[in-house]
This record gives sequence, C-alpha cells and structure tokens, in this order.
Amino acid sequence: MSGIVLGANRYGKAEVRLVRAARRGERHELVDLEVTVALAGDLADTHLSGDNNKVLPTDSQKNTVYGFARDWNRDGVAEIEEFGLRLARHFVDSQPSIHKARIEILEYSWERLSVDGEPAPHSFARSGRELRTATVSYDGEHAFVVSGLRDLVLMNTTDSEFQGYVKDRYTTLSETTDRILATAVNARWRHLALDTAWGKSYAECRRHLIEAFAGTHSRSLQQTLYAMGHRMLTHRPELAEVRLSLPNKHHFLVDLSPFGLDNPGEVFHASDRPYGLIEGTVARDGVPPAPLAWDLSEGGL
Amino acid sequence: MSGIVLGANRYGKAEVRLVRAARRGERHELVDLEVTVALAGDLADTHLSGDNNKVLPTDSQKNTVYGFARDWNRDGVAEIEEFGLRLARHFVDSQPSIHKARIEILEYSWERLSVDGEPAPHSFARSGRELRTATVSYDGEHAFVVSGLRDLVLMNTTDSEFQGYVKDRYTTLSETTDRILATAVNARWRHLALDTAWGKSYAECRRHLIEAFAGTHSRSLQQTLYAMGHRMLTHRPELAEVRLSLPNKHHFLVDLSPFGLDNPGEVFHASDRPYGLIEGTVARDGVPPAPLAWDLSEGGL
Amino acid sequence: MSGIVLGANRYGKAEVRLVRAARRGERHELVDLEVTVALAGDLADTHLSGDNNKVLPTDSQKNTVYGFARDWNRDGVAEIEEFGLRLARHFVDSQPSIHKARIEILEYSWERLSVDGEPAPHSFARSGRELRTATVSYDGEHAFVVSGLRDLVLMNTTDSEFQGYVKDRYTTLSETTDRILATAVNARWRHLALDTAWGKSYAECRRHLIEAFAGTHSRSLQQTLYAMGHRMLTHRPELAEVRLSLPNKHHFLVDLSPFGLDNPGEVFHASDRPYGLIEGTVARDGVPPAPLAWDLSEGGL
Amino acid sequence: MSGIVLGANRYGKAEVRLVRAARRGERHELVDLEVTVALAGDLADTHLSGDNNKVLPTDSQKNTVYGFARDWNRDGVAEIEEFGLRLARHFVDSQPSIHKARIEILEYSWERLSVDGEPAPHSFARSGRELRTATVSYDGEHAFVVSGLRDLVLMNTTDSEFQGYVKDRYTTLSETTDRILATAVNARWRHLALDTAWGKSYAECRRHLIEAFAGTHSRSLQQTLYAMGHRMLTHRPELAEVRLSLPNKHHFLVDLSPFGLDNPGEVFHASDRPYGLIEGTVARDGVPPAPLAWDLSEGGL
Repeated sequence: MSGIVLGANRYGKAEVRLVRAARRGERHELVDLEVTVALAGDLADTHLSGDNNKVLPTDSQKNTVYGFARDWNRDGVAEIEEFGLRLARHFVDSQPSIHKARIEILEYSWERLSVDGEPAPHSFARSGRELRTATVSYDGEHAFVVSGLRDLVLMNTTDSEFQGYVKDRYTTLSETTDRILATAVNARWRHLALDTAWGKSYAECRRHLIEAFAGTHSRSLQQTLYAMGHRMLTHRPELAEVRLSLPNKHHFLVDLSPFGLDNPGEVFHASDRPYGLIEGTVARDGVPPAPLAWDLSEGGL
Repeated sequence: MSGIVLGANRYGKAEVRLVRAARRGERHELVDLEVTVALAGDLADTHLSGDNNKVLPTDSQKNTVYGFARDWNRDGVAEIEEFGLRLARHFVDSQPSIHKARIEILEYSWERLSVDGEPAPHSFARSGRELRTATVSYDGEHAFVVSGLRDLVLMNTTDSEFQGYVKDRYTTLSETTDRILATAVNARWRHLALDTAWGKSYAECRRHLIEAFAGTHSRSLQQTLYAMGHRMLTHRPELAEVRLSLPNKHHFLVDLSPFGLDNPGEVFHASDRPYGLIEGTVARDGVPPAPLAWDLSEGGL
Repeated sequence: MSGIVLGANRYGKAEVRLVRAARRGERHELVDLEVTVALAGDLADTHLSGDNNKVLPTDSQKNTVYGFARDWNRDGVAEIEEFGLRLARHFVDSQPSIHKARIEILEYSWERLSVDGEPAPHSFARSGRELRTATVSYDGEHAFVVSGLRDLVLMNTTDSEFQGYVKDRYTTLSETTDRILATAVNARWRHLALDTAWGKSYAECRRHLIEAFAGTHSRSLQQTLYAMGHRMLTHRPELAEVRLSLPNKHHFLVDLSPFGLDNPGEVFHASDRPYGLIEGTVARDGVPPAPLAWDLSEGGL
Repeated sequence: MSGIVLGANRYGKAEVRLVRAARRGERHELVDLEVTVALAGDLADTHLSGDNNKVLPTDSQKNTVYGFARDWNRDGVAEIEEFGLRLARHFVDSQPSIHKARIEILEYSWERLSVDGEPAPHSFARSGRELRTATVSYDGEHAFVVSGLRDLVLMNTTDSEFQGYVKDRYTTLSETTDRILATAVNARWRHLALDTAWGKSYAECRRHLIEAFAGTHSRSLQQTLYAMGHRMLTHRPELAEVRLSLPNKHHFLVDLSPFGLDNPGEVFHASDRPYGLIEGTVARDGVPPAPLAWDLSEGGL
C-alpha cells in the first residue's frame, strides 16, 4: 500500500549467557558474560515479504558467540572490548546484507576463593559488585568502543547538601546542609581509539569515578555527576566522552521525636520509589560526535 | 579545566506511583499510574558549581504530579495523554530555566469486580494485561504525543514458518514450516496532532495490532512486525509512525522420541534466554521526523 | 564423624517451563505451565558418600514432565491437579528409593484473540491475571491436592476502616473510617478428596474469594482474610482448609493542603515497601490436619 | 457459622528498609538492613469481628524498628542477631496479646571506599555479595537465633562429577566425570545459645561453608551440601543444625563440533531454568528440635 514505509530497524540475539573456563593445568580462570548482538542492514525484504534470503538467523548469531568464545584468549588474556570488536567485525565483514553491528557485553565479576589462606585453583565466588560493560559498534569502516559499568551502588553519609533551589507552588522540600547522597552509577565512556589497554583503562576509570564521588563535597547530584565525568576525562586521555545516569536513591531521616528520641543524622528510611534521576554527558571539547557509538540505526528506535 | 564540557543532560523524578479514585456517589472509578518526569534546559550551573538557583527540585515535580491529579477529570474522563500534556506544559511554561519536558506515564488497567452478577460499586481487580503508555514531549513551542503499550504477550500456535535464510559456518538451525510464534509486544506510536480522542485511538490501535498479529501468516517475525505497523497506519490516520520492539520468545519442540513418543507440534519448552529481538519503525511516508518526540536531549543520552 | 547426622532433605527440578498446544483441526487449545518437582526418600547415600545409585536425576524428572505432557488430555480436557497427581504417583510408584513426591504447578492463563469479532483459531494473548496453582503431595499411600492462586491484585476504594487498635509509645498512625484496601491475594486451599471437578472448583473458589473481598465492609485486613476463607468453606464442601497470605498494599492519601487543594479520598500514593503482611488459616472444624499436604519433609526445611 | 474455625495466623510489617549511619567524628560507620516483623498471639477477635483492641498496628511495628535503631550500638558495635533479639522481646514482653514474635533481618554489606589509597571517612560502596541474615523467634520464654546467608554464588570449574545414578525410561542425561558445579547458597544455621559472638561466628561459618564447597571433590550436589553442613557443625560448636537450599545452576558444555571446533571443558551455556534444587538439613545428633525457630505458627502457614 502506498504511503507507508519501513524505517530504521535492527534485529539480533539478546542475552546469550556464556561462561568461559580457561584451564591452565590445575589453575583455572573464569569469565562470565552476557552478550547481545544487534544487526542492521539490507533487511527490507524480510519485513515486506517475509523473504529471508538476507537474514542471518539469530540462532546462528548465538552460535557465533559461543564459537568465538573458544578462541577467547588466543592472544593472551582477552577483554570484553576485544571480544566485541571481533564479533562486530565478523558479522559485518562476512555478511553482505549486514551493514552495521552492535555487540553489547555484560561481564559478571568473580573472585577466586581461598582455602586455608591459599588461593583455590578452580573455585570462585561471584563478587556481586557492579557489572562491567562494553558496547562495540561497527559499520564496515569505523568501529567505536564504549566501555562502562552498571549498578555500582555508592553512598556518602555526609558532605552532601541541597539548597538554594527554585521554590514554586508545589515545593515543600526543606533545604538541607547535610544529607545522605546515594546512587547506583550507570556509566558509559567512549574511547578515542581501538588500541587501548582495556583492562587497565577500566580499572582506572572506575577508580577515578569512585574517587570523584567520595572526594566531592556535593551541592547537587548534578555537580557530583559532572565531577565524575570531568575527573575521568582529565586523567584518562583515551576517553572522548562520558555519559552518566544516576538515580538519586533517597534516604529520608526518620522523625523519632514522637517517641521522645532525637535523630542527629543516624536513622534513615531507604526509599525505593519515586527516585530522582540525573543524567548527563561530559565530553572532551572538540571531539566530533559519534552517533553510531550510541545508536545502531539512524534516527533511533 | 579547559577542554572538558558539559553535554546533553536532563533530570527529573522517576516512577511516581499514583492511584486516583473518583467518587461519584456510590460508584467509584479508578486510575492507577506510574509517572516519570524528565526536564532539560539551562542547567549548567548546578553541574559546574552546584548552584541550584535554576533547579526545580524533583521533590516538587513529584508534588506537582499529585497536585495535578486532583483535577484529573475536571473536564470529563481524562486520558493519560492529556495528563501528560498538562504536566509537560506546566513545567516548561512556568519555569524559565526549563526548556523541554518529557512526561512518561504507565497505566495499569483494572477491571470492576462483580458480586452476584452485578458490577461492584467500588471493588476492582488489576487486569494484569499489558500496560498502556503515553510519552509527551514539549519544548515550549511544539508538543508531541507518543502512545503505546508494553508487555502484551501474544502467541500463534501455528501459521508461522522460518526458512530460506542465510546459512553460514555457524548455522545449525533447521528450517521449519510450522512453529510457535510468541512475543511480548512493546509498541509506541506517534500522533500527528494533539486533538485526538485518546481513549478510542488506543483501543483501535491495540485492536489493529492484535488483528495483524493473529491474521498474518508469518514467514519471519520481521514480517509480522511490519504487518502490525502497516495495519495501524492504514486504519488510523491520526498516526505518524509506529515503533515496535518484539522479543522472539522461543518455544522449542521437545524431542520425545527417546521415550518412544511422537510430538506432532504439541509439547514445547518455553525458553527464557537468549531470545531474538526484532525492532523496527513503520512510518507514514513524507511525515517529517520528530526527534523531540523520542529523545529529550539532542544527541541522545 | 560421630555426632553429626543428616536430617530432612529433598531434591528435584524447579521451574520446568512447558507449553502444551492441543491441535484439534484448525482450532488449537493452549496450556502454559511451570512445573516444579520435589522428591524425598532413601537419599542418605548420595549425601554421605556421593553414591548416586538411588538418585533419579533431576534431568530425568524434567524429561518426565515433558513426556507426561504428551498425554495431557488423553481423557478429555485435563486440569493441573490431575497432571500433578499423575506425576507424583509416577515418581513414588516407579522409584523404590523415592517415598514422597511433591509437584507444584503454576498455570499462566491465556485468552483467545478475536479477529473481526470472531474467535481466532490459534491466536492467544496472555491474560496477565493471577496464576492458578496446584500442589500435589503423595507418599505412596495418601495423596493430597492443594489448589490455589497467586497475585490476584484486588482493591476496594472504600468500605474499609481501621481503628480501635492498641496504641503504644511507637504508635503514630491515625485511626480512619475510610481507607483504600488493596492486596495481592496468595491463597491455597486443600481439598478433602481427589475426585473433584477441578476446573469448576477453581472457578467457584476464585469467585467466592473475590465476592467476600468485595462484599465485606472491612474493619481490618484480618477480618477480610477470615471472611474470604469462611465463605469459600461455606460454599465449597470439597475444601478442608484455606490458607491466605495477604500483603496490605498501602495507599496513602496525599496531603495536598500545602498547594491549596483539598483531597477528599481521591489522590493516593501507592507505596511499595514496607507493607503489612497478614497470614492465616481458615479450616473446617474436625478435619484432621495433613502435614504432608504442606510440607514434604517432616520437620520442615 | 458453625464448623469453620480460625487456624494458625500471624501478621506484621514486611521489608522495613533502614540505613543506620554511626557518626564518630569524621569517621562514619554504615549498617543497611531490611527488617520484617511477624507476630502471633491472641488475634482471633480481629479476624472474627474486626475488633482491633488486641492489634498493635503494623505501622507501629515499623516505627519500633526505627526507634530501636537509634540505640543500635548502645553497647558497642551491634550485630543483627542482637537487634532481632531486642525487637522480638520487646513485642512479646510489652504486648499482652502478642505471644510470639519473629524478626527477620537481611543485611546488605558495604565496603569503605579508598581515595588515594587512604580509607575514606564517610564513603562506601555496596559490596553486592551475599546477604547476611538473622531470624530471631521468641515466645516469651525461649528465644532462638538462626543466622544465615542468601545468594552466595559459588562455582567450581572442575572436581565435580555425576554418575552411577538411576536410569529410567525418561533418562537421557550422560554421565560425566568433569562438570561445572555452581550454586547460589541459601543457608541458615540455628545457634545453641544466645551468648554467641555473632560477628565472628558468622565470618567463621561463612568461611567453613566456602572451604567445604571448594575443598570437596563432588560426586553430587547433595554430597557437597552435606559436606558444608558437616564442616560447619564440626568446627563451630555453637551451632545446633544447618539447613541448606542449593539450586544447581546448570552450565552446559556447548557442542562446537558443527563449527569444526573442539570444546575441552571451556565454553559453557549458563542456563537459567529449569534448575535442580537440592535441600537438606545437617544436625548435631541429640539436639532437640526447635520448631519455633523455623515456624512462628504451629502447623505452618
């Protein structure tokens, strides 16, 4: 029917769960990933007529992830950014109909167990801390790597204030010079180049982010957000931009006075919902934007 | 420090949970919403120096949502799109520093209970079906309304095939002319204008989406996706574009032959992960794009 | 080592996800289940020495569920209680080391779609309402069937009060003669016999539970709980006892007076946590207790 | 109506979220808890007639938790077991109608952040590891303390086999002498007395549990379960019994041979559902059972 057209589209396999055990004699190493593949390209036929002759099945994509994992650390200890680059390039370079690929990887961290004070050769506990993430985008010509972390829960029990804000008809909040500041950091940072030492870069970015959180006397969560991004970009020349999404996990001081008790900043109700949500980008000036790094299909989906 | 700049940013209150009971004598009506506010504008100061003199607190935003809910159906039965428009306009029009607002609303549906075959005056059960959604964006000049639904779980137990696809080294999937097709529809559709009869439009969009799913002999989930969007645009002139995100909820035929049993398309394992994910836009040709409708901050976040 | 002993134990396969499509020519029927198997018996060897010669693998248990599903409606339309009985008897009667079995089944409900006002032959939408449940326990001699439902979310917008309660040092709650009463019903009811018409019994139990909720002017959620159980037992002679677990989903009236607005029971904040939790049993007098129906291993786990 | 009676029942406030910041000059300490209160006693009136004159509102229970938290570390650094004991005794000893109380506490662990290699005075990251738990039960005469942990995710990448099991018609599983063994430990252990050094006991119980997991060459997960409990009881004389619930988080070796690759125990698919579930008790011989420690209301609910 005339007048109706197919717009931006993509497809892929989501949440492929993969554990990679590397056996070096008695001592094993462990990598635990969730991989999501998204592909875009010359895919109109399958939408318009159900002709699949340009469609690589998502089942094959899943198999590819497992197959590539066999060679995970062919060249030494691999990182998720490299794994993503290999996969993204494979799909675009081997499939004529696929013009763009995005590989998103979550890494669950594990710690080696100790037995009688000695590191155990093949026993691990999931650390449960934040997830490390990597998103690799590739269009046959350019590749972009965005590293990041998800759900790093941080709290300052003081050194946070909030005052001097706009008051309107609906404002009942009291100004405060001492509150708890807590958030679950979701951060992503785009790299300028592809020859980064990913593991060390991640560790240092995480460290600077945390130290900016701990070291900033906060007048707003926005200020803390900017301080995080600013510090990361200042210390890590490999970064182009940092995007942060910070829920403000409210902790309300409980009024204990009805029970004859004071509460000098000690007992708090940790609230789930609603929560503030502060989101922002901090960028290196003059670096050209890279829409592909953030969005596989022009125009968004 | 020179060379580092603040980029796109926004803030707001997320997941304000609101129940609105309308009392008309004995007979009550019930509306159950989750509202998320996001605002953008002249917010550099709070990021760069912690000066909050242009920041309307997210707590006030929450209060505004509750306050506006008092007048929910001032002009008759209201719809979430209208509620979103009122809120979006309020924030931008009343706050000089706020230049854009986005209001996202989820509506949980409830059904009136019956007692002895008669409708109960003030007793309800949550229907648990899909959520109805509305996203309203406003920049002081233009407002856009995107309606939608989330988690509408649909299944065809036949009339779905998948064959003729690309085979590569990693392909092991067998072609099939009869499979289960199941998905959890996440759909959003942008309206051309603001004077729509929202309730009727939603019901008809939902109906056409469902009928396209049920009525399409599917050669790929992409084909079904396009059929849904095409049918909605064909029948509903108020729509500009439809965006669909369809997980392919795989149901694998269980091999019962080791137990001496056949399985002619009857017993399936419902798999959680991984899953295919098919996403696409179907648009009315010639309608100009509306980035603000989908993304509050230019350049994305 | 002396002095340490193995106590109550059990094992099984949890959350087997099973979709059963019944094809009767063009018209299909759909059953969507999650099945959990737990077995107990002569299992000390595998605990004490790792000798598995009395262990039926949980993988075989899963296969058994799928294999038995092939014959789901051999004798007409089956119900989950019957399916559970068949499975429980199979494990105990066929495995000398297995002395007790418990089969827990959740059923997701689906509704047939309509196209152009006609019922679609093989297209369905998940209803999203409460889950229907059945738990069957069997020890080789006696079998017990407990039917139930989970997450039936109900709300009365009035006809609920809470007053006359104990006040202590920590009481700040105001008494009220008009509040919202909302809960997510988790209910289980034990049957007296095994020859029940399960489908009709479920529908009627659900109806009486709902009508008791809607029809009771509530002075406490405990009173509503008892009214539910009492009504079910009064009207359904096949029941021995009813156990209910009712979260009190608090809805707090929002104070709009700071904004110059009244709030005559119209705008509520729906709170997630904390919540009240009211649990109780209503039983037919004189019916002997049936611990096996509720707990597979004596002494609990 | 005659013939229908109220059975076992209880009520309380669930999931009270509480953060306790202790300020000792510059250096703060942090405790993050979720507390659930359940009470039983002379509560028939509110069920039968809605007379609440023996009901302490769950709102007051919540307030009590916050009020008691003010004195959290009155006598030095407190532990959750002590906090639970104080609360349980308070409710039973101060309320004539309350005859039994159970306090369940989850503790989220946090780690102090470092800045420039120095411990930060008031900045923390949630560790995300397992939750520490305590359940205290009290009936006015006897109190029982059950400590535990939840969601400690452990993996051995070798030293696990599974063979010699029963084969029946539905068995297709292959025997293996080398598999991944992974679980999310949920463990609870009952203490013999109330004068335990809770913090040290917890650390040692956790250590023994982990070392038993890492140090046991496993022929079945049941064997590992028993080894955990046995080792804890052997080394920790303060324990009466240990109850363990161990999901068998299956990791399936991916067949890479269709792609021309071998897979010598390196690439695994981590499966979510279904999963094995192994549950058992290991007890000190001769210690009398303590039903109250595990179940507030006789007969279970």
